[in-house]
This record gives sequence, structure tokens and C-alpha cells, in this order.
Amino acid sequence: MSGSTYGNIFKITTWGESHGAALGVVVDGCPAGLELCEADIQRFLDRRKPGSSQYTTPRKEADSVEILSGIFEGKTTGTPISLIVRNTSQRSADYSEIASYYRPGHADYTFDEKYGFRDYRGGGRSSGRETIGRVAAGAIASKLLAELGIQVNAYTYSIGPVTINEDNFDLEESLKNPTGMPDADASARAEEYLKKCMEELDSAGGVVACTVKKLPAGIGEPVFDKLDAALAKAMFSIGAVKAFEIGDGTKAASSKGSINNDAFYMEDGEIKKKTNHAGGILGGISDGSDITMKAYFKPTPSIFSEQETVNKNGEDIKVNIKGRHDPIIVPRAVVVVESMAAITILDSLLMNMTSRVDGIKKFYE
Amino acid sequence: MSGSTYGNIFKITTWGESHGAALGVVVDGCPAGLELCEADIQRFLDRRKPGSSQYTTPRKEADSVEILSGIFEGKTTGTPISLIVRNTSQRSADYSEIASYYRPGHADYTFDEKYGFRDYRGGGRSSGRETIGRVAAGAIASKLLAELGIQVNAYTYSIGPVTINEDNFDLEESLKNPTGMPDADASARAEEYLKKCMEELDSAGGVVACTVKKLPAGIGEPVFDKLDAALAKAMFSIGAVKAFEIGDGTKAASSKGSINNDAFYMEDGEIKKKTNHAGGILGGISDGSDITMKAYFKPTPSIFSEQETVNKNGEDIKVNIKGRHDPIIVPRAVVVVESMAAITILDSLLMNMTSRVDGIKKFYE
Amino acid sequence: MSGSTYGNIFKITTWGESHGAALGVVVDGCPAGLELCEADIQRFLDRRKPGSSQYTTPRKEADSVEILSGIFEGKTTGTPISLIVRNTSQRSADYSEIASYYRPGHADYTFDEKYGFRDYRGGGRSSGRETIGRVAAGAIASKLLAELGIQVNAYTYSIGPVTINEDNFDLEESLKNPTGMPDADASARAEEYLKKCMEELDSAGGVVACTVKKLPAGIGEPVFDKLDAALAKAMFSIGAVKAFEIGDGTKAASSKGSINNDAFYMEDGEIKKKTNHAGGILGGISDGSDITMKAYFKPTPSIFSEQETVNKNGEDIKVNIKGRHDPIIVPRAVVVVESMAAITILDSLLMNMTSRVDGIKKFYE
Amino acid sequence: MSGSTYGNIFKITTWGESHGAALGVVVDGCPAGLELCEADIQRFLDRRKPGSSQYTTPRKEADSVEILSGIFEGKTTGTPISLIVRNTSQRSADYSEIASYYRPGHADYTFDEKYGFRDYRGGGRSSGRETIGRVAAGAIASKLLAELGIQVNAYTYSIGPVTINEDNFDLEESLKNPTGMPDADASARAEEYLKKCMEELDSAGGVVACTVKKLPAGIGEPVFDKLDAALAKAMFSIGAVKAFEIGDGTKAASSKGSINNDAFYMEDGEIKKKTNHAGGILGGISDGSDITMKAYFKPTPSIFSEQETVNKNGEDIKVNIKGRHDPIIVPRAVVVVESMAAITILDSLLMNMTSRVDGIKKFYE
Repeated sequence: MSGSTYGNIFKITTWGESHGAALGVVVDGCPAGLELCEADIQRFLDRRKPGSSQYTTPRKEADSVEILSGIFEGKTTGTPISLIVRNTSQRSADYSEIASYYRPGHADYTFDEKYGFRDYRGGGRSSGRETIGRVAAGAIASKLLAELGIQVNAYTYSIGPVTINEDNFDLEESLKNPTGMPDADASARAEEYLKKCMEELDSAGGVVACTVKKLPAGIGEPVFDKLDAALAKAMFSIGAVKAFEIGDGTKAASSKGSINNDAFYMEDGEIKKKTNHAGGILGGISDGSDITMKAYFKPTPSIFSEQETVNKNGEDIKVNIKGRHDPIIVPRAVVVVESMAAITILDSLLMNMTSRVDGIKKFYE
Repeated sequence: MSGSTYGNIFKITTWGESHGAALGVVVDGCPAGLELCEADIQRFLDRRKPGSSQYTTPRKEADSVEILSGIFEGKTTGTPISLIVRNTSQRSADYSEIASYYRPGHADYTFDEKYGFRDYRGGGRSSGRETIGRVAAGAIASKLLAELGIQVNAYTYSIGPVTINEDNFDLEESLKNPTGMPDADASARAEEYLKKCMEELDSAGGVVACTVKKLPAGIGEPVFDKLDAALAKAMFSIGAVKAFEIGDGTKAASSKGSINNDAFYMEDGEIKKKTNHAGGILGGISDGSDITMKAYFKPTPSIFSEQETVNKNGEDIKVNIKGRHDPIIVPRAVVVVESMAAITILDSLLMNMTSRVDGIKKFYE
Repeated sequence: MSGSTYGNIFKITTWGESHGAALGVVVDGCPAGLELCEADIQRFLDRRKPGSSQYTTPRKEADSVEILSGIFEGKTTGTPISLIVRNTSQRSADYSEIASYYRPGHADYTFDEKYGFRDYRGGGRSSGRETIGRVAAGAIASKLLAELGIQVNAYTYSIGPVTINEDNFDLEESLKNPTGMPDADASARAEEYLKKCMEELDSAGGVVACTVKKLPAGIGEPVFDKLDAALAKAMFSIGAVKAFEIGDGTKAASSKGSINNDAFYMEDGEIKKKTNHAGGILGGISDGSDITMKAYFKPTPSIFSEQETVNKNGEDIKVNIKGRHDPIIVPRAVVVVESMAAITILDSLLMNMTSRVDGIKKFYE
Repeated sequence: MSGSTYGNIFKITTWGESHGAALGVVVDGCPAGLELCEADIQRFLDRRKPGSSQYTTPRKEADSVEILSGIFEGKTTGTPISLIVRNTSQRSADYSEIASYYRPGHADYTFDEKYGFRDYRGGGRSSGRETIGRVAAGAIASKLLAELGIQVNAYTYSIGPVTINEDNFDLEESLKNPTGMPDADASARAEEYLKKCMEELDSAGGVVACTVKKLPAGIGEPVFDKLDAALAKAMFSIGAVKAFEIGDGTKAASSKGSINNDAFYMEDGEIKKKTNHAGGILGGISDGSDITMKAYFKPTPSIFSEQETVNKNGEDIKVNIKGRHDPIIVPRAVVVVESMAAITILDSLLMNMTSRVDGIKKFYE
């Protein structure tokens, strides 16, 4: 069955393989009247572009986006927006070796089992390049959310054993350094750790955090399309994510009700919460405080050290995988997390518009 | 927008409130020819029934299921199966107090913000009784999976600070003790912890683990309906879940590629993995090994000790919530997790049937 | 796959068989705050109730509806509304004969081919009683549309060769006579025709027309969920419908552009059309004039005269089908058409709310 | 809301405007292992290409398709297939006049009402060029159906008052003449009629028929996704369709049960029908005989003669629309009807695979 369409109202359909002609996305259901140009999207794509630091694949790709439809006189028309990015650096390498065995930690084996064969060039559809369409669509969702006063920001929370210190938090910093950490000191330590991993021909994992600010209360559709359920699906659909949490997350399980409950209080005539253990969601619906979440990424499965596996002849073999590997996925995944969050938040915001008869009456009067 | 339908092919629509006339589910898309009777479903419902131990609400409900459609001569007909459970113990209590303020940690405030008002009797739709429909549908999914040789089993992994010892693992034990733990010793310690919580008028959280055995490789629909993404949504749609992980989960983020990668090897002509850090899913597709996952539940928000909150007049107040509270949700949530996993696994299994032209040709020949 | 759910936002899931315990519908996505009671729904159900004239099956059913969820203090809560109608007149007849062969014009053969067997009692799920859920949901959609000033009305346009005269049009009349025709004279002639059909042990077909008034311009979602495409699916999902048309319909195909185009003109500062050949839809979107449509129903396949068919042993046989047959479906189908139109119009109206950025900004400000 | 995605398993998302950079489609859910190349798709696109006769717009477009993803080593991989056709003949005309008023019979007014403004160049998204994506996807669906032995063929049934004579039926003929009629004599008369329309600066409508051969019994998903309901939606989503019928269609409404019922009989051990008034569908499910259907198209709204309308200043005006108009849509719509039928039939065929437990067991054994 088809699994490349995401969203209910703001609906994206991504397509493309690592070494195909191009990758892209069709955004259907984007409301009409949003000012949008290629630069708006390129800015997001540049944040996930390879080759920008020594910790990412040396593959060189401009990842230039072209808008093919859905925009007229600088504004969205309400019809599908088609975005395309041409691949330019598909090396005409010899893939016969990689085609012959299953890389550990990759989807080679499972794609073969599911589809009978696979596009083995650079991972095909299971490559991280698949996220180009998500990020292009995320740029649009983010721009529309910003017009509604809602901010979505992701950043690297930890790399291997190195975690940021919230006291040093500086979002701007995260956009400047190669780790994506909003803490210059932690970032420097994380770089040390990554260098050591590379020396050891190994790879590292990490955590991406994301915060949504100024989302109104009332967003989320119980019981199955709760806001946290939608975000969980969004994040787990990103390759390499192995855990996801909202608010205090795993820690809540060992807490107590008296501590974990966030007390309500009045401030300037508005209902506020004294704490935010819940991460801004109660009963699957936003409560007006910040939405906080974390996605946990496994270490890049492509490593340079020798590994055991099997080949297509059913033989146990040892392999040294060549090629262009990121020693860590996390810094480039930050904008992917931010994009998936933005798309999900926007979609939920649009879904909420039909919740009440009075809102519908006001709309049509 | 509507959020009470879940699944793509095996599709469930749940309905009902804590203190309404009844709760239920319509299962649409259940294949024809499955032997099914009320006892099959009742067995699952009995596992979540209240009042079975001192750690669950003393509310007395038989939770007897009636099949209203979709079964003929003892077998499913391929048409929608409608299941209903009448509420019998809606106490004609005075709800005016609870209607007047927002309980911390509950969805009272967010439902009011979303819908303009709420059914405040027992939490209305945000009550745990909402899961009756899920469990009834889960019983059907589990039965069909069992016919295909696939087993789904959930159990309590931890309660507060008490975690099971895998060396003591005994699934049968988990069905006998009040904690749902497959480890008699840990269960006894967890009971001590729960008793202390109750004495302190407090509540506890915990973790439910779930394993799927004998699922064929190839199940899951990249890139958005990956098996792990589908499971994540399923679990996060359960009230009180704050984190979810597959395989090593959060731990993978601080691991290294050389450790986290599962090496393939041949055994009796079949491809196996030496370890299962991945939890049975690679690239969003099952790899033939056990699917392992954990859902983290927050402590029950209803506690007997005094709490701060606001009332509908916009005043800061202190409240002591009366009523029938579970000091912990986890033991009764085990069967809910198992049900949501079974529904999701079955749905993904059905979705996979159209993945290959050769499979389709074989089917129609 | 599952096919018993209809709608995108206002989403209905129907269930139940002719001779099962009950039939019903779950309405998910009904906005909160609509005043609703059982009488609102019963009024619609009474319009399709059997036994009300000599031209309908003599089966006696009260078809009393019970609301099981989704209403609190007389208003919809935004959560799923579950409606149930118990079957009371499932005669304990001997069905062994009807189970043994395939009735011409019925779904007996196709259900067996699809599902491997069928509930043969009274047609099972393929019975006209399946529409009870649609009509119950249609009552809710109609009530909400009425609050927005939108009227949906269906009536019998023709029975066999007898067609109404538009000059005699009187909607009230259609609710009083047994044909559902808004023209007393045509109705009398149609009755004569039906009596003759019954004498000949035969059955008749006919046409149901439906008009939607005061629908704002702008409703419909190109290119696949156009308003006319949505209505076409809705109508063709009703058993026995063999053709559907909007506006001039089939006649448009033999017309010319100069005649078929509706000229725009100004009236009191508003854009109007001099004619309405288009039936109120241009490019799949409502244009502010009346939506007009017609659904063509085949004659009831159950007739008392002898017919040729085959039995389950693969033998050619001749049969005289006993039982309770309607000599015509049309009069009872009027409210089904009206219900499906109302559900579809409401769903499209809700879908339109996210079409423009300015509308979204206004909503959330 | 988004309306540019169609299908449940074989899912297409079309995009593009008449005068944008390009048009295309993403086909998600195409099974893996189908041999497919650009020539397979180009063959279909060439059938709808403009400029091929004097009865179509003189706009010159090569409409060359490029496959951007989803194919590897000549076969579909199971991942999304992205197809693109660049526009080459967007004349840099002065659109200020056409932007200033609403063309009768077109979607200018309704798009403005819905989206607040519109891409007025050549009709934008409401142009017939939108169907390029449908036809490209239809080529894939047709190829896969052919591998399963199922043939879908559409042809022109009538143009204005000229209808084919079934006795002359020759499908090959329909692919050679400019009318698309499978009857050389009728085609010649239709050409005379069209020439007269053109002389009168007028336009014509017509009917496209479509037949599906060798579809197995059992296809279609009651009660809302019946095969006829799915086909009705598919056809009504094509611009200019005003009526749709299955089998005898409108005529069934004035027939009698004794005539309209198709008698079953045995032939060579198989169940057949003596007639096919039903058009191959009973109870919304295919019965193994030919599926027959007709779509009625209105005359092209763009005509050269003077028309009355209003402009954006709210003034009544008279207009003579310049540009490149087809005097009739029907001949080029034939392949669009065939494509939408093929996509719908394939999607329904795939949906049916999960109908029975025994089929699922056999698949996974």
C-alpha cells in the first residue's frame, strides 16, 4: 500500500531516491494567499544540505529547489505546489558489491523482502535524501505558522554522551555551529567526541529537541489523532528515530502524580500552568503552553570498520563498506524534525477549525 | 475534524463516554471467514475491567460485550462488526463541583477550549473507559493474527522505580498478579511501592512492554506509514503515554554504530540477526525478528491529596478531588497496549499484500 | 478493504444487516454545540420506515432510534455520536430455499464471490435496511445545514413512465402522498401505474430529484473531490442507483455551448446567472445558485413472477421468490437521497474552511 | 482541503496548471516489479495531445513525459513514481482582458470565490491540461491490468445528435479517426456536425463509453466504496462531465423488474448472465460480466460567439473570448475516461485482496 502521503488537510506526498533523477514533494491543501518564493524553501533545504561540515557526507549537492506549480504572482493559489530538486552528484560508481549483500542496520534486507528487489544505489528510497521533500514542505508550513504567530524550533539536544546545558541555551548558536547545539560549550565537547568516533571508524547517535511556541489551546483530535499521537508518527517516520517523548517523557513513568501534575493558576486574566511536565498537551490537545518533545536517533549504521553480514548467495561474509558516510545523522536531522513538527502542527491547526458550530457559523456569516 | 477512526484496512471507529449509555466500536474491514464469538472479545475486556484489585478504581462494571452485526453462523462476514458495552455503574453523583474547575493533569481545560464545553461526568470521552472499544477490536485483531501464527503480548515492565528482572521472565505470571508484571518478585516490590503511594494519597506511573513474535519480514509502508511510525501513533493515542520506544530506544542515541548495528548471519538457510537492538524494524519494515517496544505512562493525574488549580470563574483555588481513582493506570493499560499493537500489526500486514506484482498475480490466478 | 465509512470531516460509519440484532451509525466529526435529540433523528427515519403504504414492504418495524453517545445536556459534544436501531421483525422464516440460489438482480452471487459466503437472511448487508444509518446521520447533517441557512430537499421526479409537471410543483405534497411526488396529479397517475405493476407481479423504477438551496459559492475541492464528484459517489453508493446527473445532465451532451452556458449578470450588487443548466456547479465548485441533481433507480429486483437463475449446485432452475417486496424503491429512497446529499454538502462545506490564509487568520484571531 | 489525491491503494496525486512550468503526477502504491518505461506512458499521453486534428485546440505541445523516480532497472520498485511533463507553448499573451471578467461555463468565478484569486492564464488548474497527470497514471494502471488479463477501453459514443451504431462497432477505427468513434460512418456524420458548429462559432458535447473486460467477480467495497460509486466519482471528477451511468443507466428507471433483471445460467460449469442490463455490477460488486458505463460531457464552454457576463467591477458586459478553443472536448476526453476507469478498477482490485481470511492465509503461507 502507499505510504508516501502524510497529513489530513495540509497533505504532502514525497518522492525520489538517492541516486534517481530528482527528488521532490507535492504539497496539496496549502491554503491560498500565502506569499511564497523559492528562497523561502531554499533556506530550509540549505540547513540539511550535505557537505557543510566534516561531520557530514562529503557528497556535494546544491539541492536547488524549483517550484513547478501552485504559485501565481508570488502567492499560493490553493492548488497543489510541486517542488523538485535535481540530483547532481550521483557518482557512476560500481554498485555491484553493495548490491550483493545486506548492510547491517540498513533497510537493504527489508526492502528486498518487501518488494522483491531494491534500488541499491546509495540506499535508494531509504536514503536520508528522502527527507528533502519533507524539508521543502516544512518550509511552507513554517512560513504559514509564522504568519499565525506560531514558532517551531528544533535543535540538537545531545550527541553520544554530551548533552546541552539549558543554562547556556542560545538558539542562534545552534544555527552557527556544526553540531546544531544551542550551547557553544557542549558543541565543542560534542565535536571532540565525534572526532574520536571517526578515528575509531565508528559513528554516533544523539537527540533532537523541538519546541512549539504560541500554539493556541484546543489543537489535537482525540482519540486517535491526538496532537501527541500525530507528532509521534511524524517523528518515527524519520529514518533512524528509535524513541520519542513529549514533555518529561520517559521520566514521567517513574514520577508521582503530585509532582507530575501541572497546577493551573490565573495570570492577567489568563489560565497558565506553574510547570510544564506535560509538554503542553493534555488529553491529546494543546493546553496553550509550549509543546516540548525529543526524538532519539540511533548512530549512523554506515561505518568504516569491518562488519559481519550475509550476501545474496546466503553466505556469511565480512564487509568494509566504502562510500560517503555521515559519522552522525543528528545535526542534519534537526531541520527534518523541525519540518515534520511544523507540518503536523499546521495540519492539526487546520483540522481544529471545524470543531464547533459557533466557529463554523462565524466563518460563513 | 474527526479523530475516532483508526487503521487503513482493518479500520476501527470507537465511541462512548465514561457516563453515557454505552461505549463501543465498529470494526470495518475485518476479513470474512474468521470464527468469532462474544467470549473471544469478553476475554480481552475482562483483562481491563475495573475493580479487580485494590490498585484499580472500585467502580463495578461487568463490561459485557454484545455483538450487533457482522457475524453470521459464527463467522465474520466481511461487513462491519458492531460491538457494544452498556455502562451500568454511572453513579448519579453530584457533578456540580467537578464541573466548576479544571483538574490538573486532566483534559478538562483542553476539552473546554476545543469544544466550548464538556461532558464532565467521569471525564466524558477523555476517560480511560474510552479504551473499551480499542480492547474489543484488539481481541479480534489478536485472534486473526494468531491464526496466521503471530503472537502479540504486552506486560508491565516497570512501576515507579521497580523494574522487572528479565531473568525471572514468566508471561503467565503477568496474567495472575495485580501488577501485570511477568516477574513475581518485582511484582511484590511494586505492590509495596503502590501501597506507599496510596498511603501518601499519591499515584504512580510505569512502563508497558510489548513483543510481537513470528511477524514475517517485509511489513511496514515507507516513508510515512513505516511500521514503527504506525506503532508510535497507536501507543501515543492511548491516554497518559508520554514516551515510546522501539528496540533499544532512548539508549540507542548514546550508543555507537559498531555496537548498535545488528549483524546478519545464516542459520538453517535463513537470514537471522545476532542481536536485536533495532527491535525488529529496519527502515520502517519488519526484519523477521521480534518486534520489541515500550510505552511510558505518566502517574494517574487523579490523586486524593490537595492540589492547586483554577475554577470557571477565573479564580485560583485549592481542591481535593473525590471519586474513584486508580492509583496507577499501568496494569489495566497492558491489554490496551496489546490491543493497539495487534490492530496496528494486522493493519500493516494487510497493507503489505499489494506490494508486489507477483503476489497480486498469484492471488488472482 | 473497509468501505463502510463515508466523509472526510463529517464522517459516518454505518453497520448492520437486515436480520441482525440492530443497525446503526457512528457519526464522527460532528461539530460541538448543535442542539440534537432523538426526535430530530426519528423524524427522518420515519420517512423511510416500511409498511407505510401498499407500495412498500409490509414488514413492520418501529425503527426507533437510541442515541448512545456524543450528546450532553441536549447538545453535541464534538465526540462520536453513536445511533442504534434495533431490528424487531426478523421473521424466523425458513431461509434454506433462498440460501440455495442466487436471486437475479440482487447481490447474492457477488457477495458469495467476494466473501466466500453471505448472510442470506433478507439480503444481509445488501438490504435496503442498510440505509437506516445513512438516514440517521443525514438528519444530523440536515439540522446543522439548516442552522447555516442551507436547505436540502429530495422528492420523486418520476415513476416508470410518469414524470412530474414542474408547473404543479408543491414540495409539501410530496411528503403527504405515497409516491413522494410533489405533484398530486402525477402522483395519482403513478399510483395507477404501480397498481398495474403489482397485478402483473412486476416492479417499477423511477427517478429521485434533489435540490440544495442557499449553498454559498466556493464549495467543492478540485480536482478529485469536486462537489459533483462527491455527490456522484454519494448517490451511486445507494443500492439500485444506475445513473446520476447534475443540472441538465445527459441532455447537456446533445446541447451546444451557446445554449448550455449560463450567462452571468448583476442583480442588487450580486453576481447571478440567467439560467442554471450547470446545476449550480462550475469546475466542481458551487456557484451560489441552486444545486440540482437526479438519481435514477432501477426497478426492485425482487418480483413475484417466475425467474430463471442457478442454484449453488450449479444447476439452471426457475424460482418464485416469496417474501415481503416493495414494488418500487423510489418513494422510500427519497429521504436516503436527501440524507446522502446533506452529508456530502456539509462535509464539503467543512472542507472549504481551510481554503484561504485570510480565512484561517480571521478564525484564529 | 486538499483534493488532488485519488485512490486508496494505487494512489495518484496530480499537480500543475495550464500555463505553469510543468504538470505531473506522483503515483504512490504502484506494486513493485512492473516493467515500465517512458514509452508506455507516452503512448497514452499522445492520445490526449492537442493539435492532432482540426477539432482540437491548435496549441502545440509535445507533452513529453519524464520519469523522475520509482523505476530501477526497467521495473517499478514499489516506491512513488514521479512523472513530469513540461509546458512548452505557454504563449506570452496579454491576459489582462480575460483576467478582468468571468467566462460563462468556466470555473473563473468559482475559483475566485473559493480561493480569493486565480491563475487566469489558460484556466490555470481548471484547464483540461490538468488531466495530463491522470492519463500518465492511467497508462501505468492499464499496463498492470493488462498483465492480469483485464482490458479497459473507452471510445466516443455520441457527438451532439450523432450516435454510433453498435452493429458497426470497430474499436480500432476509434483510434484512427478524429472523433474517437468506433464506427466510420457515424464518425463522418459527427465531423459534418462539428464543422457546422464551428461555422456557427459554437461548440458541441457528447458521450464517452467505456468497457472493462475480464474483471473477476467480487470487486468493489460496499457500502460506500462500491465499484459503481468509485467509478461515478472518478468520472464526475473529470471537467465537463454532467452525467454518468452504469449498464442501462437512465433507461433502467423506466424499465420493469421482469425486464431489467439479468437471469443467471450455467455455461461450461461457470455462472453467466443472459443479459447485462446491470452493466456488470450487482450490489456494488463486479459480477464477472463486462463493466459498461457512459460519461456525458457538456459542450466546450469556450465559444467564439458573443456572450453576456459580468466583469470584476460588477458591470454587465458582452464578450468575445479569443484564444485556442476545442469545439468539442469528447475525442480528447476518451483517454481520460479510460485512464480514470483503469485507475479505479485497479485500486478496487487491490482493495479486494484483504476480503477473506482464506485469501490472506494463502498469501502469507
